[in-house]
Formats: sequence, C-alpha cells, structure tokens
Amino acid sequence: MLKMYDIITKKQQGRELNEDEIAYFVKGVTDQSIPDYQISAFLMAVWFRGMTEEETLILTECMTDSGETNELLSIKGKKVDKHSTGGVGDKVSLIVGPMVAAANKGVYMPKMAGRGLGFTGGTLDKLESCTGVSTEISAEEFESITRELGFCIAGQSKRLSPADGRMSALRDVTGTANCIPLIAASVMSKKLASGSECIVLDVKCGSGSFCKTMREAEELARLMVRIGAKEKRKTVALITDMSSPLGCAVGNSVELIEAIRVLEGRGNERLTELCITVAANILYAANVADYESCVAIAEETLYDGSALDKLASLVERLGGDKRYIYDTSLFEESNVTAMLVAEKSGYVTRIDAYEVGRAASVLGAGRDRIGEAIDPTAGIILNKHVGDRIEEGEALATLQAKTIERAQSGMEYLFRAVTIGDLPPEENKIVLKVI
Amino acid sequence: MLKMYDIITKKQQGRELNEDEIAYFVKGVTDQSIPDYQISAFLMAVWFRGMTEEETLILTECMTDSGETNELLSIKGKKVDKHSTGGVGDKVSLIVGPMVAAANKGVYMPKMAGRGLGFTGGTLDKLESCTGVSTEISAEEFESITRELGFCIAGQSKRLSPADGRMSALRDVTGTANCIPLIAASVMSKKLASGSECIVLDVKCGSGSFCKTMREAEELARLMVRIGAKEKRKTVALITDMSSPLGCAVGNSVELIEAIRVLEGRGNERLTELCITVAANILYAANVADYESCVAIAEETLYDGSALDKLASLVERLGGDKRYIYDTSLFEESNVTAMLVAEKSGYVTRIDAYEVGRAASVLGAGRDRIGEAIDPTAGIILNKHVGDRIEEGEALATLQAKTIERAQSGMEYLFRAVTIGDLPPEENKIVLKVI
Repeated sequence: MLKMYDIITKKQQGRELNEDEIAYFVKGVTDQSIPDYQISAFLMAVWFRGMTEEETLILTECMTDSGETNELLSIKGKKVDKHSTGGVGDKVSLIVGPMVAAANKGVYMPKMAGRGLGFTGGTLDKLESCTGVSTEISAEEFESITRELGFCIAGQSKRLSPADGRMSALRDVTGTANCIPLIAASVMSKKLASGSECIVLDVKCGSGSFCKTMREAEELARLMVRIGAKEKRKTVALITDMSSPLGCAVGNSVELIEAIRVLEGRGNERLTELCITVAANILYAANVADYESCVAIAEETLYDGSALDKLASLVERLGGDKRYIYDTSLFEESNVTAMLVAEKSGYVTRIDAYEVGRAASVLGAGRDRIGEAIDPTAGIILNKHVGDRIEEGEALATLQAKTIERAQSGMEYLFRAVTIGDLPPEENKIVLKVI
Repeated sequence: MLKMYDIITKKQQGRELNEDEIAYFVKGVTDQSIPDYQISAFLMAVWFRGMTEEETLILTECMTDSGETNELLSIKGKKVDKHSTGGVGDKVSLIVGPMVAAANKGVYMPKMAGRGLGFTGGTLDKLESCTGVSTEISAEEFESITRELGFCIAGQSKRLSPADGRMSALRDVTGTANCIPLIAASVMSKKLASGSECIVLDVKCGSGSFCKTMREAEELARLMVRIGAKEKRKTVALITDMSSPLGCAVGNSVELIEAIRVLEGRGNERLTELCITVAANILYAANVADYESCVAIAEETLYDGSALDKLASLVERLGGDKRYIYDTSLFEESNVTAMLVAEKSGYVTRIDAYEVGRAASVLGAGRDRIGEAIDPTAGIILNKHVGDRIEEGEALATLQAKTIERAQSGMEYLFRAVTIGDLPPEENKIVLKVI
C-alpha cells in the first residue's frame, strides 16, 4: 500500500518515482487526501533532487487527467494556445491574441490567463484595468467569444488541471516555484487540458524570470517541447530576453495602453518585434503559410488597424467600454507622478528586470497574497532603454502611484535597477532562440 | 520586515540564518502564525542544507524559550536528566530511574518521556502496560513524586518547548526526523527547559536508530554536548550500539517485564551493563564519587532489591498495582504466541534492529499515527543474541500478537532480520564511546 511518507523519503533520497507513486501523489493532491504539509515537503525534495524526464512526463499526464479537458468542439479551425513563463512588462498575449484573430486565416487563440503574484498583476489584471471589463466568464461564454472573434482572453477554469491549482499555490509560498520539472508539468498540464492542437511557448530568460540563465531556459524549453510532442501537440518554444523589462511600461493600465500602441503600429520596437515573431510562429504552427509569409500576415494586422479592432471587440464582449481602446486618455490617471532623472551622462548599460519588477510591486502594481487588490494605475514608464544615450538630468522613467510614500519607495528600487556607463553595451536580441 | 518565504529561500540556497530569522521562525511555529506547509518546506530545506553549530544553538535557545521552564524548586538535591535518541528494545529509563533513586545519594532523576511513533510504544506506553498506571499527571504531582521517590517517569508537559511539539509532529510525517541539527535542537530544548543541572545522553548508533553510522552518532553527540556546555549544563553523551535490539524483549509489557528482570539482578548481560554505565555516569556527573565507586553504587542497587522497590513505588504512585512488579505472571498474556526456529545450525551473526522493530510494529506494538491505540501485550522475545551458537530447529524468538494474521506478518519481518553464519561474528561492545 502506498504512503505519502514513503514517496517523500524516496524522492528525498534521490530515487526515481514510478507511475503508481506519481499517480498516488496527484490523486491525493486533487482529492485533498494528502495534507498541505506533506505536499510542500515533497515539492521541496523535488526542488533539491529534480525529476527525470520520464517522471516529469508522468506527472504532467496525471495532472492533466486530474480535471476536465476543454474540447471547444464548436470551433472548427485550428486552435493554438500561447503561454509565457512570465516576466516584467510582458503584455504579449494582449497583442498577439488580437493579431492572430485579425489575420483571419481560420486560426483560433483561446487563451486562459492568470492574475499572477509578485511584480505586477497578470494578463487578466491588465485587461481589467479598462473600466467595466470582467474576465471571469463561463466556459460557454469563453467558447462563443473565441468562435466569434477568433480569440479570447479570460480566467483559467478551475476545472482544468485542479492538481496544478493546489500545487502552484503551495509552490508560490514555499520557495519551490523556480523548479524546472515542476514548471514544465504545471504549464503543460494546463495547455494539454485546454484542447489546442498547437502550443507556442515564450520561455523568458534573464533576471526578471524564473530562468536566470540560457542553460536553464533551454532545459525548460526542450523539456516542454518534448512533453508536447509525446502528447501529439505541435509545440514550439521561443527563448526570449528578460534581462530588462519588455517594452516601456510595467504595471497594469500602463501595460494595456502600451499594448494598444503596438496594435496601432507605433509601439516599442523590441516589443513589436517579439509580438510579430510570436504571432508568426502561431500562424506557422497552424500551417497557414511559409514562415516569411506568416511574418508578413502578422505585421499587416498592426498596420491596417484590424488587430486593434479585435482588442476593442474583446473589451466590449467582456463588459468594457471599447472607446478606451481608441482613446487612451479615457483611462484613469494615477494620483502621484514622479520622475527619475539621470545622475550623469552616458549610455544606459543595464535596466534590471527583477529590480524594475520590485519597484512596480512597491508602487502598488502587484500583490503579495492571492485575492489582494492591486492599484491598476500604478506603474512605471521607461523613457530610455538599454543601449540608449542619456544626458545628466534627462528623464529616465516616470513612476505612477497612489501615494507619495509609495512613489518614493518605488523610486529607491528603480534607482538601483539602472546603470549608466561610459560605453554603449553590446546589442541584446529580443528573440534569443527558437526550439 | 521578516517573511517566512524569505527565510525558506535563504536556507534553500544554503545560506546561514541569523538570530532574528531563527527567532522569527520559532515564534511563528509557537504562535501558529506560520502555516504547517511553510514549516515543513523549511524543515526539508534544513534536511538538505544542514545548519551550522551557531544556527543550531540559536534554534535550541529559541525553542527552549518558546515555553515554560520546569524549575523543580522544591527539590534540593542535584537533578540529572537522561535522554535516549531512541531505538529498538530501549527500556533503559525504566531501569536507570529506579537505580539512581535507590542509590540514595541526593541525586534526583525527573524524567519526562514520550509515547513514540513507529516500532514500539515509548517509555510511557511500556510503563502503562502495567494495569492502572497513568503517566498523564500534573506538574505538581510530577515534582512531588520526584521529591519523595528520588525519580519520576511521566508524560512530557506541553508547556515545555511547545515549538518542539509542533516541529516534531511535522518532522515525523514529512521524512525530516533524521536530521542531526533538528534532533539536537529538539532534544536539548526540552532538556534545557526541564531545569536539570546535568544531562546524560544515550546516543544510539546502528540500523535501529536515526544515526546509522558512528560518524553521524559522534556528530550528534558532540553537538549536543557543546550545546549543553554553552548553556552551563554538565552534559555527557554515551554512544551505544543499536545495530541489534537492546536486551531480549521488544514491545511494551514484554519490555517492562525485562526491565524488572534487570532490576532483580538477573537481566540480560549487555542491557544490564548499559544500565549500570548510564546510572554510573549520572551519579558521576552529579559529583557523588569517583567513577569506579559510582559503578559499584549503581550495581549494588540491582543486587539488594532497592531499585526494584523504587519501580514498585512509582507504579503505585501512578495508580498501578505494585504486585505486578514483584510477580510478573500477573501481566496480561497475548492471544497468539508463535515461535521462530533456526533453519540451519551455526552462529547468529546479525539480528537487525530495524527489521526487528518493523516486526514488532506489525505485531501491534507500535503506532503509525498520534493517538492510535497499541496492543500492550504484542511483542518479541529473542532467545538468542548476536554471537550465540544455535542448532537447526532451535527456538530463535517468540512472537506475541492479538491475531494469527498479525503473528504471521511479524514472523515474515523477523525472519528477514536474522542471519545465521558458519563463523562467530566479531564481538560488538554495547557502550561504544563516551563523549
């Protein structure tokens, strides 16, 4: 008879778990028969000992099977899911979803997103910074919006991979979130349950993400691609830079506004490049055309306004006012605005994503505990990027917060995040690798 | 502001915790402000990363301070506490307590004991196998019995080191019981709170105990002795053999009966030797006389019947019938008795303590969960010891259980525990080292 105690000590001793043991664990996580303290001790043992690819694959399958599968049977075209491992300033889903839908090539992007802890809100919080929008919709509503618009961005159904819900909540508070096999099983179990034929993964690499080094990012990317392939899903992983924040805005409403700028065809260059690459990979994975044509199709949606219209339609379907999308001056403004200026002239050699994320969190853009309210207007707008020339006294960034105290604390973090040197740094590409 | 999350990740990364962090942890364990799942993740991180001596000392002090101290002010003589790290067949406290009291040299042994999980019951369960005995007494009762008899064996007060109560309960179910700094802090926090001037530790070494090797046992012993010294307690540690069970009996009533045999001066030789050594060290630590004289004083209590009388007095004070102590035929008998016989002739080269413990547990002598009932009559009596000559068909051991099924399962475990070889094994001393 299996006992959780024995499974913990087996992993603790570095031995490989078999299918029965992993299935027993996932079942006990799902039906609550294993208590939190044994789960968290086990997760910590996995953090130290790791898991073999075989163990990770079995764990993923058991987690997928722990809940329902979202078949989306009424949608006849190709369904592609997109997932980012998360970083600072990552608003890519808000841009790519509308782009794929606007391409109008029979490819659907049903995207279930999260709220996120830590630095800033998640994709849902960013979308909900537009007054009236609610992303808590039914599975039926999710399916019909996807069918009608070609995409949808809404809350993750609790019925998909419920084992992951409990494990992720415990990992967040026990220091075991940054564990490659556990990340892979968490991401892939939800993606497999979501019922899409193709999966495009954006694996972040750098200080602002779980994977600090290229070695870790590649390991995670390859592992997830192999799991996807084993489960007969076309899976592509991009490894993209997260050493500095993505784009100019870090926060919630500021990020939605930045997404709108990209959809207007006048966004930050690196961010726009990444969105086009992700959208093109989605279209290419769905066999729309050769890769170069997919890039052209994706680009076109930004310059003909069709992608922007798709975002406006989603906002409207989710209860929001679509005029915000066409006139961002309607967004609520923050109480306090502060400016960080350069202390000396030179080149921006570093804007540390992790430190900027901390600053945004201190400003009020993030949450420490599940369910906490965030300040949708809090955030940071960077005026300069790594590689830019800056003069003493010139504005580096603008901070937004509810109170002066918060603005001051955020300023201290942000100050530490930036380095100005005498020589321009080496160029750092946004897309580092495609796996 | 300290957060438990940061303390977990600091230890996880192998960095040394400071006094504030350890104090924050112990306070949160005691006042329940830190949840079980974070405590168990932390304990697992400590299992992997260890603790420095400085960390362990601080942890011990904070745990001691988490509750009350048992001053025993009404007792005017020297108070000596005794603790064993636990093994299979360990009934030493039941023998040594009466010996120290019978020596009548102004040395008191107030011994708070536990119930124990796993192999067999703890000292309390063994004592309570004598009908009527209850070891759940008040602190006042504990003090007055100690004062009047010279010793007492009773339940651990929950007011001493409450942090240890919660930590030990979690360690038992998460595979983190066998961690040297955590064992040292657990043992020493309770001993320091118990208010004795001297502490004599019996650190077990071998398959039936936490410390499987001499290296581990020495590390634990030295660590506890240094902690004791830092806290101004005279602390001695004996490292004693636990590769095979201690004495002949493993169980509850069978162990109490074996303790009576030793107190009658006709017990198993190795067990008697160990009890005399422990009792002599207690008297010597209390400055009663030179070590050789202390040995003679201890021995005398076994041969003049005075130690047996002390046990009888304790049983009476705890509500039991003292006639059991003078006539062990009064003890309840088990339903089923089975005999393990030798399959071949030769020398007993191995009786594995761990396997014998498992056998006893399967017979019904142990418990898996706190509060579970045990079968006081279940257990094992070994007729042969390591080094003994045995002939094919000769009785190796007797098993006692409530049902035939339990007896059969126990037999299977016990069979695996014993090896018979052609040559006698090397002699293995009972007391391996004094630190």
